[in-house]
Amino acid sequence: MSAPRAVALLSGGMDSLVAAALARVEGYSLTTLSVDYGQRHRAELVAAERLSRWLEAADHRVVTLDLRAIGGSALTADVAVPTDGASEGIPVTYVPARNSVLLSLALGLAEVIDAEALVIGANAVDYSGYPDCRPEFLDAFDRLAALGTKAGIEGHAPRVLAPIVNMTKADIVTTGVRLLVPFGETVSCYAATPDGLACAACDACRIRAAGFRAAGIDDPTRYATV
Amino acid sequence: MSAPRAVALLSGGMDSLVAAALARVEGYSLTTLSVDYGQRHRAELVAAERLSRWLEAADHRVVTLDLRAIGGSALTADVAVPTDGASEGIPVTYVPARNSVLLSLALGLAEVIDAEALVIGANAVDYSGYPDCRPEFLDAFDRLAALGTKAGIEGHAPRVLAPIVNMTKADIVTTGVRLLVPFGETVSCYAATPDGLACAACDACRIRAAGFRAAGIDDPTRYATV
Repeated sequence: MSAPRAVALLSGGMDSLVAAALARVEGYSLTTLSVDYGQRHRAELVAAERLSRWLEAADHRVVTLDLRAIGGSALTADVAVPTDGASEGIPVTYVPARNSVLLSLALGLAEVIDAEALVIGANAVDYSGYPDCRPEFLDAFDRLAALGTKAGIEGHAPRVLAPIVNMTKADIVTTGVRLLVPFGETVSCYAATPDGLACAACDACRIRAAGFRAAGIDDPTRYATV
Repeated sequence: MSAPRAVALLSGGMDSLVAAALARVEGYSLTTLSVDYGQRHRAELVAAERLSRWLEAADHRVVTLDLRAIGGSALTADVAVPTDGASEGIPVTYVPARNSVLLSLALGLAEVIDAEALVIGANAVDYSGYPDCRPEFLDAFDRLAALGTKAGIEGHAPRVLAPIVNMTKADIVTTGVRLLVPFGETVSCYAATPDGLACAACDACRIRAAGFRAAGIDDPTRYATV
């Protein structure tokens, strides 16, 4: 019997890598999916391709989606990425409806390759305040998938797997270390250089660094400045 | 007080046009959204732009999404469009998770422009067997939107408007005639020529022609052959 298939959304950052690695350990054969949505830098897409090989993914797909026609986020539009620490509420780096879009694309691919699961590195703990990282959102997506797909009509809709959704960033780091994931190859920074060097100042860098500190693990992040 | 805003998904076909026209009549200011998802022909995108002007849309956006990396449909992959009449079950022209993807993109734009509604020409009657055209799917999307967006957290998530979901194709034609929509400018055909001339043989052409016949309205469709 062949391994069950899963589509794993892979951004090039550490959360999606740890989530995918956990699904791999659970026995899924992975097809990784990265979305080129007009990110400011290419480093994370390059990292995702490399990490797919580390995950021994059966296939790596890249869907191109130009979200700049929609705009609305510092990650895709011409808005400065804040570097002065986390503030109250939903930050400007929030990409409108991003996880709805990403999961829908993963769902489409899952239907085509007959996958049982959609793996996403959503995290509701150190999550920067994004509403579409919460368990209740992911449950709502399961229902959408069950009703909106050919597979769902046939009774085997792919389900969302979010294995790190309730972990702290320190838990994610510890889990990744246990699975020997190559954290040094991941890019979390919102403003990374083309070579994938991190800025150390944006929210994503701050949350990541705090996670390594809390886990008591040396931070292997490659920073542009010391 | 300014008019409430709606994002209207506009494919260039007749269903989405009638749905958008109904929302316009209800008093919404429309921003139309077309998705260039690697359709075989460009005629429907050209039609969508022209129809946006007819709708007096405040803005027309085009998001580019290359679904060919996912494949799985005769509309985007290298699979022949069937011309031998509707068959049992879900047809090969089904695009995996298409309405999930389209509504998610519309949701993202709605967040950015602060729109109250997402207008979609989904139709569950003469719907070719696509699961993501049914009211229960659209209800599930409302829940997703409420949970997965900044607007939802603030209590004003955009809601799906599917004004033609329960109409027969004949009802859609009759409604469109009443609203004076330019049916001759719409492109429904799965295999239209670059100039938007219809094939008369694919499922979409057959369903459309039957709708005009049932409504007792002269079919203004421009066909490539007689």
